[in-house]
Order: sequence, then C-alpha cells, then structure tokens
Amino acid sequence: MIFPKGFKAGGAHSGIAKGKNKKDIAIFYSETPAQSAGMFTDNVVKAAPVLVSEKHLKLMPHFRAVVANSGCANACTGQQGMYDAEMMCEIAGGILSFDPAETLVASTGVIGRTLPMKKVEAGISSLAHLIKSGNNSPGNAAEAILTTDTVAKVASRKINIGKSSVTIWGCAKGSGMIHPSLGLPHATMLAFILTDAHITREMIEKSLESAVSKSFNCVTVDGDTSTNDSIFLLANGASGASLIDRPGKNYSAFASALQDLCLELAKKIAKDGEGATRFVEIEVKGCGDDAGAKKIASTIATSPLVKTAIFGSDANWGRILAAAGRAGVPFSPDKTDITIGGLSVFEKGKPKAFSETAAKKILNKKEVSVTVNLNEGKGSAKYYTCDLSLDYIRINANYRS
Amino acid sequence: MIFPKGFKAGGAHSGIAKGKNKKDIAIFYSETPAQSAGMFTDNVVKAAPVLVSEKHLKLMPHFRAVVANSGCANACTGQQGMYDAEMMCEIAGGILSFDPAETLVASTGVIGRTLPMKKVEAGISSLAHLIKSGNNSPGNAAEAILTTDTVAKVASRKINIGKSSVTIWGCAKGSGMIHPSLGLPHATMLAFILTDAHITREMIEKSLESAVSKSFNCVTVDGDTSTNDSIFLLANGASGASLIDRPGKNYSAFASALQDLCLELAKKIAKDGEGATRFVEIEVKGCGDDAGAKKIASTIATSPLVKTAIFGSDANWGRILAAAGRAGVPFSPDKTDITIGGLSVFEKGKPKAFSETAAKKILNKKEVSVTVNLNEGKGSAKYYTCDLSLDYIRINANYRS
Repeated sequence: MIFPKGFKAGGAHSGIAKGKNKKDIAIFYSETPAQSAGMFTDNVVKAAPVLVSEKHLKLMPHFRAVVANSGCANACTGQQGMYDAEMMCEIAGGILSFDPAETLVASTGVIGRTLPMKKVEAGISSLAHLIKSGNNSPGNAAEAILTTDTVAKVASRKINIGKSSVTIWGCAKGSGMIHPSLGLPHATMLAFILTDAHITREMIEKSLESAVSKSFNCVTVDGDTSTNDSIFLLANGASGASLIDRPGKNYSAFASALQDLCLELAKKIAKDGEGATRFVEIEVKGCGDDAGAKKIASTIATSPLVKTAIFGSDANWGRILAAAGRAGVPFSPDKTDITIGGLSVFEKGKPKAFSETAAKKILNKKEVSVTVNLNEGKGSAKYYTCDLSLDYIRINANYRS
Repeated sequence: MIFPKGFKAGGAHSGIAKGKNKKDIAIFYSETPAQSAGMFTDNVVKAAPVLVSEKHLKLMPHFRAVVANSGCANACTGQQGMYDAEMMCEIAGGILSFDPAETLVASTGVIGRTLPMKKVEAGISSLAHLIKSGNNSPGNAAEAILTTDTVAKVASRKINIGKSSVTIWGCAKGSGMIHPSLGLPHATMLAFILTDAHITREMIEKSLESAVSKSFNCVTVDGDTSTNDSIFLLANGASGASLIDRPGKNYSAFASALQDLCLELAKKIAKDGEGATRFVEIEVKGCGDDAGAKKIASTIATSPLVKTAIFGSDANWGRILAAAGRAGVPFSPDKTDITIGGLSVFEKGKPKAFSETAAKKILNKKEVSVTVNLNEGKGSAKYYTCDLSLDYIRINANYRS
C-alpha cells in the first residue's frame, strides 16, 4: 500500500452514526510534528470543529493529528459544541502524548445536534490506543469519514524530490451539500491529505490553495455549501527529502502531484454524488478570462434543469445555454458552440441538426462531457458534477430522520 | 367577470404545443392605443420575441396588442427566429388593423426550435378574426400561455381613481425554469397585465418595476432563469379616470393594487411549480438591509437540500441556516432565530427542543412558512417557492421528448 512514512491512520465504530458497525471515528496521526495547512468553508455559519481547527492553525507551528467523526456535524451547537470539539483533541492528545492544540478536528453529519460525548470519548480512546500500539489502517479511516457516500475515496501519488521518494496520500468524503467554497469548497466535503514531504508553512499553504482552486473548488453536487467543509494537508518530512521552501522545480513537482491527487478525489466526490447516475464534466472555453469561464461552468453545473435533463439522457442544449446566460458573465450567444460528448449540438449561435439516437447513446454512458466554447477569448475552466436523479430527492427527503 | 374596458383577449389551438386540443396562441388586444411597459429576462441569452418586444418598446409610444404562443420558445433560433417573431406581430396587426411595431410578443416552450410558422399563422389569424368579431375570452388566453403549468393563473383588482372605477386584470404562467430576474425574473415566466387606467409612460414603467421587485422577482421554482421571461403591462385609459402622471394619491392607489395583483400571480406560480407539493414562504428579517435579506431569502428558497427536506416534511433547520450562511451576506449565527410555521426550532444561535410531531403536522400542510430573524437590523424580504419533489425530476427528465 502506498502510504507516507511516519503517519498512522485508523477508523473505528463508536455508535455516533447510524448503522450497526458503521465506522464513525477517524484519526490521522503523525509520529513527528508535521507542517500543516487547512482550508475551510466560507459559509457564515461555521461548525465548531472548523472554528477550533482555524484557531489551532493560527496558534501552533506544527501538528500531530487530525481527529474526525461522521454522524454528527457539531454545527450550530453553541458553546457546548466548541467545548466538545476541543475535547476531541484532548482525548486523542492525552493518549498519543501531544498538545491538544497540535490537533485539527473535523465533523460531518446532521447539523444542530451536540455530539454524544461518551460515545465519542470511548471511540477516540480505543482508536488512539490501537494507533499507539502501532496499528495503521488508512482504509478504515477513509471509511469512517463517510456519510451518504457509497464508496470510500482514496488517492495516492509517488514523486521524486531530488533523490528521495515522496508519497502523498489522501482520502475524502462528499456526496451531498457539495459545492465547496473553501475560503473555498461547499458540501460537507472533508479531505485529509498526508505526505512525508519536507516543506515550509508558506509553501504548504500555497500548494494547498492552488491545488484546491482547480479541484475541490470545481466540484458541485447540489450547490449547497456546508458549514463543515474542511481540507487538511499534513507534511511530516519523514521521507528525508530536501526542504521545499521556495518556488522552483521541487515545489512544482510537489504542487503538481498534489493538485493531481486533489482532482482525483474531487472527481470521485462528483461520481459518488447523492443519487448520481452520471459523472458530468463541464468545460467552458473561449471566455474573456478564467474567472468568467469558471462562473459559467459553475452555473451550468448547478442548474437543476441541466442536471435532470442529463438524468433523462436528454440532449437539451437549450438548458445548457440558458444556464450559461444567467451566470452574470456577458458573452455573445451568436458565437457560441456547444458539444455533448463530442457531438456538436449548437454552432455559432444556431441549433445543429444531430442524431437523437447518437445523443442518447452518449448520454446513457456513465461519464458525460459538455463543452461550451464562447469563441471570444482564452479563458477556460472545468467543473465536475453529477446528474440530479429521483434518488437525490429520496435520499434528502429522509436524511435527518 | 372583472376585465378592463376596451380590451379583448382570447386563446386558440394551433398545434404548436403537444396535446390534442391544447390552446397555444393568445392575443391580448386593446381597442385604442395603450400606454405600455415591459420587463424582460436579464439572461445573456435572450429569445427572439424578447429582443423584438424590447425593440418595439423603444420605438413606439403606444401599443395595441401582445401576441403569445406556448409550445416553442423561439430562443436560440438566430435570424430566422427574429423574422418569425416579427411575423407574429404582422399577422395580428394585418387583421386587427394596427402597426406591427405596436405589438409586443412572447413565446414559451422548448429552446432551440424554430416556430412552425404555418401553424402559427393559421392560429393567430383565426384568433384575430374572432377578436375582431367582438369575442372576448380572457380565460382562453390565460390557458393558451401555459406549458407544464397545471392550472391557469388569473388575478384582478378594482380600485377607484377619483370617481372612476379602474380595473386591473392579469394572467401569468410559470412552473419550471422559474427564478425571474426581469431586468429581473427568471423562469419561463410570462405575465400579461391589462388595465383601463390612464397613465403616462414614465409612471407605468415605475409602477411595473416597483411591483415586480416585490413579487415576480421574489419567486423561484428551480433557480433557473429563462431566456424568455417577459412581463407586459398595457393601460388604455378606457376607464375614463383622470391621468396618473406623477407620484401622489392616485399613483399610489394604482401602484399598490398592481403590486398586490402581481404578488397574487407570483404566489400562484410558486404554488404550481413543477412537481410542487408545498407552497413555501421564506421571510428573512432583522438583516442589515433589505437587499441582504433578499439575498439570504433567495439562497434559502433555491437550496435543493432545504426544498427536499420540506418535501419530506423534515424540520431540518440546519439546512436552512447553512443555506443562509452561504448567501454571501455576513451575519452572526449566534443571534439568529428560526421558526417553521410559527414553531421555534432555533433561538439565539442554539437548537430549540421542539415536538417532532408538531413539526410534521406543520410541514404536512400545503403552505409552509419559514422565518429567519437575524436580530441585527431592520432589513427584511420575502421569497416564494415550492418544495423539490420526485415529480420535479420526472417532469424535467422528460421535457424535450
């Protein structure tokens, strides 16, 4: 298994989440202090673990662990919620012998309920003891963070920094309330990325921001931004590779592998969106600038009409163009081309005759690509999403109960 | 029947729309030149009838008719579409003896198909002849503009201007692609309002803008803004009431009745949203200003998670608060109160214990109100929407075919 040196991860069942043996506690632990970066939801309403992690990141130079739970978001829980999030750090730190402030914390699940702290304490304790005894089960950690996700999402990369081999490993969860805006993303999207690279705080932050802007921040399931979105990146230097402390060849190799890994995880989130039957890649090009292209791509990717049309395998390009037109970015529809899975359906502002049979065949595939070319400039962007299906409604009409 | 003097309206079946006897052509005709105002989609992609109506409104001082069709949006149809929209005006003007430029035009239906002009011509001709012969059937007009709507939407008001009785009558269609932004609204939302008031161009425009900002521009079904949204207001002065040419008592009486009528139509659109099982009124108050409150209310009203929760009769206030938090308007969640149908579920930043049975009872009603009080200022706004149901998906996964 590809996993960075000097880290241990695990997951355990504590009974916070529903489901008989559902794992709901995860710990990501570094044997030595790790340089860290975090990005969090820009929702005005931030969950307690987000506020606590932000505070710890400001206070401390290094980190030893991230503790997470599913089944309860610990959001909108007032002072009690803040206290409980701090307690999660303390319980882990007590057993694994580090300062609770050197811990980051994340939660996902129902909003507005306080954590069942007896279960949380028992769960973190037993898992921390297991890790202390040398156990390393990253697969369990990746499982423990899931909520309505149907599969665990894990990705890894190996690169060379000088003569040393550096590993990056990450896991993520997504599914619903996904439209990250982590300083940026929206969802409850959580991602935990570990690497044995040796890197400064400034460079680790820069690499994470840059990777997220073209990955997690370009994925949407339902346009809803969560109160709990968090992405963590811990680098403990255990690879023995030379320090990355400035832009240059080593930084670029690391940043590019990180972005690649984040993109793989982000796509996995879209593929496993609540009720998803299709993975959809929206590319907007020929726009005045990248920001405008991203805005248009995001508007298409969140349009309920576009998403239900794809669910129905309907090459309804009119909805795509109408969504593009309401993004607030000026463009000339007369110059616009639209293709669906490579099939041209709209060219230079005019409907193009196409075979409905060919279109159905394309849209019945599990992966669908939509390209909108405004033919006006060089700006481009990609957005990743899924269709809007009957199951999305079924899942979300029954979530809390 | 309440209907303004000097107008005639009617609807006819021409075969543009599907359905054996589905009426799909409407004409709203004034016997004398009428002062008019129009508001149209702010989508970058505007349908041909929108562009033609905008052009006519700029060119002409008075209008004699609005001609509309359902079944085909005449959007993204290039030069041919422009020509066809102008032709619709010409056919009506030819028979009813007025300048085609004195005609406004609207279409709703599938995007990207050109109008079947033979059918359109036959339909407009026979209807125009019927009207010329003295027939007045506003109910048929209200029916002819419908697409996926399940009921016709008509409203009327009678007011006194001085000693004269003035009538305002309107009909609207909505259902899907509803989030008007008509200079403003989004959908295909169409509304045709006729009055025998006597009013100047400046005052009629002012009254329409003001009415729409608190009615049609506060209604959303799916957050998608159409390429065809149009609202028309024609005033022919046939009541004999004195001219409204400045702000004051008479203007206020007219403007307030108009806004009231628009609000009634807007609510009817939300109630008849595609697949709707609930009408939902979102009120945000205690905000720094009205604009911020409207932004928050709109974000809650378009949240798929909030709307599916209401479909599932789930008092999931966490989703309401999370949606409010991502509206981009700063507020302090610690001060926020949320009530659902008068039931307090969140108070001063803390979950409030409530009876799930009582909540279910409230949410099982056909009309649900949600109030978010930020307790920070005096800004407030209301938004009207519906739930997001399985039928919304069923309807829209099969629209084009």
